Amino acid sequence: MTDRIVLATRNPHKIEEVRRILVDAGLAIDMVELPSDAPEVAETESTFAGNALLKARAIAQATGLPTIADDSGLCVDALNGMPGVLSARWAGRHGDDEANLALVLAQMLDVPEHRRGAQFICAAAWVVPGSHEHVVEGALEGSLLREARGSHGFGYDPIFCPDGMAVSVAQLQPGEKDAISHRGRAFRTLAAMMGSR
Amino acid sequence: MTDRIVLATRNPHKIEEVRRILVDAGLAIDMVELPSDAPEVAETESTFAGNALLKARAIAQATGLPTIADDSGLCVDALNGMPGVLSARWAGRHGDDEANLALVLAQMLDVPEHRRGAQFICAAAWVVPGSHEHVVEGALEGSLLREARGSHGFGYDPIFCPDGMAVSVAQLQPGEKDAISHRGRAFRTLAAMMGSR
Repeated sequence: MTDRIVLATRNPHKIEEVRRILVDAGLAIDMVELPSDAPEVAETESTFAGNALLKARAIAQATGLPTIADDSGLCVDALNGMPGVLSARWAGRHGDDEANLALVLAQMLDVPEHRRGAQFICAAAWVVPGSHEHVVEGALEGSLLREARGSHGFGYDPIFCPDGMAVSVAQLQPGEKDAISHRGRAFRTLAAMMGSR
Repeated sequence: MTDRIVLATRNPHKIEEVRRILVDAGLAIDMVELPSDAPEVAETESTFAGNALLKARAIAQATGLPTIADDSGLCVDALNGMPGVLSARWAGRHGDDEANLALVLAQMLDVPEHRRGAQFICAAAWVVPGSHEHVVEGALEGSLLREARGSHGFGYDPIFCPDGMAVSVAQLQPGEKDAISHRGRAFRTLAAMMGSR
């Protein structure tokens, strides 16, 4: 049986990654695009899990369909865990990857190597109207580079070096990224829960 | 007796405020300008106190004179205490008050009223070569406005509303600001220590 499910995002990179991760996890789903008249959901919560649930609930209510949502971001130790839930609009405008990444590099200019630790965090929410809701998190530990490297992925991938590696996430192939990424971890956990229903 | 002392900053607003606060505190000092060949000190510490001491020590060593230094900034609850020690270069370029303030307002756009709490913090350091060093802190509690107001002061003053007030710090007269400000509190504490020597 193939279930229809909505992914509550308009970010083409997230759609591609989540679809790939769920398909690779063996989940047979028909991932429906977000309807063009779906409500814009302001991410007003202070946690990734809170915002992921907020988006999944709003879209599940609007469509009446099971909905999954992703809220994710970069948490930099020397920025006290920020950009965090503000990752997508860190430079002031929503979704400007290049400006966001350049701003973090500029803010971290004087921060020495031993204080450049960071984490990628992803919260994956799953809401089935009238039935149940779940939210799980995945993380990837690493540190910030001093300049962008690589052309794969999106967001802060070009400046993030996973622990134990010598390359940025944007230098990894898609499958290599998914195997270790915060999003891969979160959505594989969710896939296991969805598959067991 | 009037002691010569160096203030380790090139920020004209800080020079004016610190001089005013110390004079109002009754301290008879001859505040010497930072020599033009004084070293540039990168603020690499993770705390205001650490950076204030870093600057005061470097200038005391370079000049051989007693030195005071200020490290201060805005700590926003919803930004996990940032911009913090990065307040002066939050938008990426050092000392661009207008860009820094506009960036914080943009980052806080979706943050609701009850999560807009913030603090101004000032660390004031005093280093006497070959003798002793001290660092003290002052704080001002408040919340962030949604647009800039007022033309006095500098930095983030136009968007900061002190608790119990209905105006921004930039709408206060200099004496009113000093009476409650983080910098007023820190340097009055320091003045009391300096006067008792």
